[in-house]
Amino acid sequence: MLNRLHQPKDTEGIVDSAVQAVAERAQDHVDASRLAASLAALAQFGGRDDGGVSRETLTAIDLSARRHLVDQARALGCQVSIDDCGNLFFRRAGTEELPPVLTGSHADTQPVGGKYDGAYGVLAGLEVIAALNAAGIETVRPIEVVSWTNEEGSRFGPGAMGSSAFVDPARLAGYRDAADQAGVRFGDALDAALAASPDVERVPMARPMSACVELHIEQGPVLEAAAVPLGVVTGIQAVRWFRVECAGTMAHAGTTPMAVRRDAMAVAVAIAQDLYALAPREPGSTGSTGAPELRLTLGQWAVVPNSVNTIPGKVTFTVDMRCLDDAALDRAGAALRLACTRHAPASDVAITRFFHRGPTYFPEAMLASIQRACARASQLAGRAPPMRLTSGAFHDAMYLADHCPTAMIFVPSKDGISHNAAEETDATDLFLGAQALAYTVAELACRRP
Amino acid sequence: MLNRLHQPKDTEGIVDSAVQAVAERAQDHVDASRLAASLAALAQFGGRDDGGVSRETLTAIDLSARRHLVDQARALGCQVSIDDCGNLFFRRAGTEELPPVLTGSHADTQPVGGKYDGAYGVLAGLEVIAALNAAGIETVRPIEVVSWTNEEGSRFGPGAMGSSAFVDPARLAGYRDAADQAGVRFGDALDAALAASPDVERVPMARPMSACVELHIEQGPVLEAAAVPLGVVTGIQAVRWFRVECAGTMAHAGTTPMAVRRDAMAVAVAIAQDLYALAPREPGSTGSTGAPELRLTLGQWAVVPNSVNTIPGKVTFTVDMRCLDDAALDRAGAALRLACTRHAPASDVAITRFFHRGPTYFPEAMLASIQRACARASQLAGRAPPMRLTSGAFHDAMYLADHCPTAMIFVPSKDGISHNAAEETDATDLFLGAQALAYTVAELACRRP
Ligand SMILES: [Zn+2]
Ligand SMILES: [Zn+2]
Repeated sequence: MLNRLHQPKDTEGIVDSAVQAVAERAQDHVDASRLAASLAALAQFGGRDDGGVSRETLTAIDLSARRHLVDQARALGCQVSIDDCGNLFFRRAGTEELPPVLTGSHADTQPVGGKYDGAYGVLAGLEVIAALNAAGIETVRPIEVVSWTNEEGSRFGPGAMGSSAFVDPARLAGYRDAADQAGVRFGDALDAALAASPDVERVPMARPMSACVELHIEQGPVLEAAAVPLGVVTGIQAVRWFRVECAGTMAHAGTTPMAVRRDAMAVAVAIAQDLYALAPREPGSTGSTGAPELRLTLGQWAVVPNSVNTIPGKVTFTVDMRCLDDAALDRAGAALRLACTRHAPASDVAITRFFHRGPTYFPEAMLASIQRACARASQLAGRAPPMRLTSGAFHDAMYLADHCPTAMIFVPSKDGISHNAAEETDATDLFLGAQALAYTVAELACRRP
Repeated sequence: MLNRLHQPKDTEGIVDSAVQAVAERAQDHVDASRLAASLAALAQFGGRDDGGVSRETLTAIDLSARRHLVDQARALGCQVSIDDCGNLFFRRAGTEELPPVLTGSHADTQPVGGKYDGAYGVLAGLEVIAALNAAGIETVRPIEVVSWTNEEGSRFGPGAMGSSAFVDPARLAGYRDAADQAGVRFGDALDAALAASPDVERVPMARPMSACVELHIEQGPVLEAAAVPLGVVTGIQAVRWFRVECAGTMAHAGTTPMAVRRDAMAVAVAIAQDLYALAPREPGSTGSTGAPELRLTLGQWAVVPNSVNTIPGKVTFTVDMRCLDDAALDRAGAALRLACTRHAPASDVAITRFFHRGPTYFPEAMLASIQRACARASQLAGRAPPMRLTSGAFHDAMYLADHCPTAMIFVPSKDGISHNAAEETDATDLFLGAQALAYTVAELACRRP
């Protein structure tokens, strides 16, 4: 999978004061109550009594939500378009026909999700357009707000279908064959969605974009713990998923002497213990060296036959390894292989890497622009200055980073909770995030090539 | 639960040579082909194409098998009776009206079991009667062959209902309310079985018995590994079952820094690792000290939510601890509690002991009788002398040990496999086991009080 590292462009070294003034004016025209009303209105689509939202991709509820977004965007004067993967684009024209500045996120949710995961990034994008309209600002470049199809991947796997297909349209053919639990094909659900939008112009995928900024809730506890409202996301951690299968011999817990046992769980536990001992030895574990932290999760376990008085004959568990530093993952993978060798004959343990994705580094020029935007918004609100952090979760921006200079802004998640009805973010933080986005998008859209 | 330790009786110190001569004659009249035919005939009831047997307790197949056993016993001249728990007794009269010598086992199987688990003990008992008949031996005490109801406990829990209710009839009322997966009550299935035997005399439970001998396949690998055909079972291991519940906080594998995680699996693995390190430090682990071995099995695991990229919020696992020495289980229980304290705050780990049973020691006088029987049978066959071992599995004899002097004889299980269609024992070993049983039962039944 292509994952280029974008280097900063020197042309952006000097900050144009006229552009700054426009960016500040855009930021200052973001309206907290308009944003809150917009978030509340979309949350009605699939809204649940417990405060959560159930709006899986391309369901009837999602199609209603899409229609609502189209109507909102048109009311703001946007030109609406859609591509072959159902991604919706809301365009505010620039003074020149240059590649647009893209912002947005996704409007689909997990089976039970919250009001802000994805939706916040789309609606904050529309709020930026409302703010530009209110301020009477004209930008050089067009601005497009995007709502990507199927970021969550819960109904149809994998996730981030819309953004990854936009970047590499060859992916779409494979995605179309993905089926949900009811046997519905993604391709058929997509065609129905496209047919339901005959009034929306079809645009090609992989169109040139000048830059992309995604605003999202953190879905983790870092900003909240630091009492910082705005995070400058430096990149997205690399991920490797392994399946470790330990083979043993099922036998009676009472009648089988310890010396003759082939206990798959004893092997699995010994390997797992070696892995847990690994993370604290990695450079980033103390947080003091500035090295990216290695994160290890052994989340999924299957035991056969899973009976109180039978020695396990097979234990399978997964290892989710993440780090912004790919070399740390190389070390962790080697440590996993070593642990398996230490605790069982090679024939008794099989390791399969069943998913991997390299790290995404957002370019420094983009980070600098976001840093300025976040610093000003925080300062005016009397809050702590922005901090830099990495994203541990995947986002559409991860794929867009393969296509154009890209970056992300995070706002805090209460208790770090996401993919849950209890997902929550302070209204003030949501407002500050939209302000930072307005500044960034305006600055990027006012720059000449 | 009552579990008295039977001490040897001094009255049996001197071996009466006339009794020995009778016992030898009984042993020598056991017929290998008659036994094999008897085993093959019962295996037809619930017989499977893969060689296994599916004959769960009180099913239609089990009722047919019971009728078959009644017919076989009557053909041998036995008087047949049944008690309120459906236990079947096949009685060969003695010359005096003394408490009988009891032998037998169970005729029910696991959903998929083998031909010998339980059935072997019942049919070897009938073979003993056939041998006594053939030899024209009269015994002082009556001999009864028993087929206990529901030893396996797979259809209705708990197991060993018949033998435990025989010993303590107050248990039966509670057992009657046990229901199978189809909602059928044990009490109703039992009443149907009793109604299907109007020609069988009803006898009281808890009747006095002078002794009990159960012949059974080992269901473990010890005899096979030692190439020994006959095992003198010294007792049944004590068992304690614990459930360990580790609480954590579900969170995203990518977005949650290691330092703020409450990872239930990391805690569970650390506790499990401490437990696995425990068994090799116990006295019996080397096999050289003669101390009984501590056996530990962590067989059943549940992980919530059990997802690759979510930090486990709850991990529950079971610990099956067995040893003939209760003190070793006290130490292991203390080690489990210590491990939990070491690796998590007390509020994060809950330990529940959800089953326990103290050790059963078979009395030395019974062991001496079995030892003589096994030694002679092995020697005449040119095989290795008998060895002493403990039973790691429960058996009906465990309950009878609370009622009268009791012991068990084991024959090898190929590859230690049981509760499986692949369960197998050499025909010669089955024959030697029946010989040893004939000797023991004849000796016990010829002794005057
Ligand atoms: Zn999202
Ligand atoms: Zn059995």
